[in-house]
Amino acid sequence: MKFVVIGGDAAGMSAASRAKRNLPDLEATVLEKTTDVSFSACGMPYNIADPARDIEDLVVRQADVFREKQGINLLTGHRVEKIDPAGKSVTGVGPDGAAFSFAYDKLLIATGARPVVPEIPGIDLPGVMVLRNLKHGRRIKSFLKEHAVQKAVILGMGSIALEMAESFRTLGMDVDMVKPRPGLIPWMDPSMSRVIQDELEAHKVGIYDGHPVKSIEKSGAGLRVICADRTFETDMVLAAAGVIPNSELAEDAGLALSVRKSIAVDPSMRTSNPEIFAAGDCADSDHLVSGKKVWTPLALRANRGGWAVADALAGKDVRLEGVVGTAVFKLFGLEVARTGLSVGEARSAGFDPEATVIKSRSRAHAHPGSTTIWVQIVGDKKSGRLLGVQMVGREGAAHRINAPAVALHAGMSVDDYTQMDLAYAPPFGPALDPTLAASLQLVKAMS
Amino acid sequence: MKFVVIGGDAAGMSAASRAKRNLPDLEATVLEKTTDVSFSACGMPYNIADPARDIEDLVVRQADVFREKQGINLLTGHRVEKIDPAGKSVTGVGPDGAAFSFAYDKLLIATGARPVVPEIPGIDLPGVMVLRNLKHGRRIKSFLKEHAVQKAVILGMGSIALEMAESFRTLGMDVDMVKPRPGLIPWMDPSMSRVIQDELEAHKVGIYDGHPVKSIEKSGAGLRVICADRTFETDMVLAAAGVIPNSELAEDAGLALSVRKSIAVDPSMRTSNPEIFAAGDCADSDHLVSGKKVWTPLALRANRGGWAVADALAGKDVRLEGVVGTAVFKLFGLEVARTGLSVGEARSAGFDPEATVIKSRSRAHAHPGSTTIWVQIVGDKKSGRLLGVQMVGREGAAHRINAPAVALHAGMSVDDYTQMDLAYAPPFGPALDPTLAASLQLVKAMS
Repeated sequence: MKFVVIGGDAAGMSAASRAKRNLPDLEATVLEKTTDVSFSACGMPYNIADPARDIEDLVVRQADVFREKQGINLLTGHRVEKIDPAGKSVTGVGPDGAAFSFAYDKLLIATGARPVVPEIPGIDLPGVMVLRNLKHGRRIKSFLKEHAVQKAVILGMGSIALEMAESFRTLGMDVDMVKPRPGLIPWMDPSMSRVIQDELEAHKVGIYDGHPVKSIEKSGAGLRVICADRTFETDMVLAAAGVIPNSELAEDAGLALSVRKSIAVDPSMRTSNPEIFAAGDCADSDHLVSGKKVWTPLALRANRGGWAVADALAGKDVRLEGVVGTAVFKLFGLEVARTGLSVGEARSAGFDPEATVIKSRSRAHAHPGSTTIWVQIVGDKKSGRLLGVQMVGREGAAHRINAPAVALHAGMSVDDYTQMDLAYAPPFGPALDPTLAASLQLVKAMS
Repeated sequence: MKFVVIGGDAAGMSAASRAKRNLPDLEATVLEKTTDVSFSACGMPYNIADPARDIEDLVVRQADVFREKQGINLLTGHRVEKIDPAGKSVTGVGPDGAAFSFAYDKLLIATGARPVVPEIPGIDLPGVMVLRNLKHGRRIKSFLKEHAVQKAVILGMGSIALEMAESFRTLGMDVDMVKPRPGLIPWMDPSMSRVIQDELEAHKVGIYDGHPVKSIEKSGAGLRVICADRTFETDMVLAAAGVIPNSELAEDAGLALSVRKSIAVDPSMRTSNPEIFAAGDCADSDHLVSGKKVWTPLALRANRGGWAVADALAGKDVRLEGVVGTAVFKLFGLEVARTGLSVGEARSAGFDPEATVIKSRSRAHAHPGSTTIWVQIVGDKKSGRLLGVQMVGREGAAHRINAPAVALHAGMSVDDYTQMDLAYAPPFGPALDPTLAASLQLVKAMS
């Protein structure tokens, strides 16, 4: 069997590696347009924060290992330009500029996602950067090394934008964050996004939400970011305004697209063409709480998608379960975590949400070092079902989100959750875990 | 309604407080034999470790608050000696030595548990101590203050014994731990209890498992602990060889006892006499994984038991769910956590267990500060069901246990668990959570 993979990152390499293990006789060809495969994209903000660390540390496995140890025909610098579903082939341009063509029996589209580039005059100036792949990471690191960068403006306030704000502050740079719509973290209860705003302010990060950027101009050796009522002089700009799926190849091949133009897949990661799979950041998934299609470009999902494709090729009856929307990020001294639906998302999904925000503690009564943990819990008034949990705190929020995440997979009610036998010892939390305390409050509020 | 409670700690006070909120006209009398109510027993090892902290800091709520703000007739120094189920009364001796008698409509036995006192000659010598209630904590703290204590021998190696070993080492004392049977933590896989043993040795704690103590003698100003092949000179001895339920009052009243002589209760915490409830460390519970009765004297269960009794009094159809055996403790730099059944427990419960131990990381690939996390996962070969998880690591083990705990409540299979949408960010773990990595390994091993 000829198995061709477009894209050599998490989903693509997971699929090719496992497919070769499942079916050693399979011919696996991976066509990667950059020079890099298998790197830890999520580690880039932390690597950039430390000038002593080589960005190449983020490479998890070298291309040669895939080629020599796993027998994968891995071709970097190969940009696929067209899929021909009728002829079952892909064509494109190789590193030497010569055209290539590969026939396939099964095809995996694992083209990932790319940064949204805001349509702003001057967005293409030198010194305006994005961060998505290792090439971007290298460019930022060498820019920081070669220029006396004292100031950055970040466009966007998502988790990458926030992680990069911390990264730049760690390097001693001044940081202002700017975005067009008001609200630092719109999906979060204001009492909790206030905690995040306070943390950013304590670390002297400027927050300018509700400030659409009109243009970016050259200004001496640096740049000028111009909003209607404010101008930012800066040495560099990081555009971190979110990502969009690389689904154009799929669209041109006539494959069905889904939410936010991601590629529609079934639980075995098949697209609307049964010979063509899609996985990773270009593909959609099912949200188990809302019951709706969502686009969740996250690492864990990408690896699982790749493995699922490899197992489907081997004839296994693969049914990859959907997501419940779990995510976490660190911001200076804070852990910010969520799972399931926010109040607004719950309402959009047709639920009748009730929510409670509580303040609890990260350690037991009278235990030294205890800090505040904020928990929001969301339930459906009609059915009593648990819909989501959000948390912010200095410790114990990141891993604590996983218990309610599992409860969402199990379809538990808020009342069910109140009965969970969770761990207790004074250094790790109060006897009544903050998520349990929140669930008890919500049961009261819903009754 | 006359509601009488025997025992004023977690279960008793939770029940009395909530009963008064549910039914303001209820007459609630709590009979507590010591002078203390509502204190954080689990906090004692940490309090003892710090001479600057007052042991009274562990009092969560003063007796007067219960009396004055909540209208509870709270009587300390009142030792109940007999329950008369036919006459619906309890009798005993008050602080002045005078007999008392209280009639009840509903009775709650919340008498807790007490330390096992090993039957060893010399166990009653001054300088031999136990740690269970606040009186014990005060005695240890004042003993440490008044004597030049340089050395302690701890009898036992359970979680309290281990927490106290850390506490004494923090105070600069030499510590030897001695117990009769071999095996530091018998329910744990040897590869993981080895990690704990290494941590104890690194902190210069002597470990003498498989050493039955023959006697304890006076030796100068101190004590001598004598085993068959070894003698320990010491300033004090802490007997921490486990606890047993205070169920004698219940037994004398003809109530049914259960596993390890705990008081048998149904899901509404009723004993075999429908007018008498039992809750907290004296009562049994259902283990949701083994399906068997277990005795789990833990704080969270005690609070829930008390609330359940109060709700049952108010006529609610209370069904307190059982436990899944979740527990955690800190030991120097280690977090040790478990949920569900060990391999041995699974076998005893009639399962056909398969288990895998993996080593994973506490942070992502190439993220600074990453440490090893050991995970054992246990499944049933016949049904594929998830049976238990154990974890040891320097960070991220304590809260991480709660996700598999919820999965056990939901009755998930190991394969189900592999699909959980858990949180990922580089500072908090690898993209594939250690528990997920373990579950994938176990699915392979079981297939």
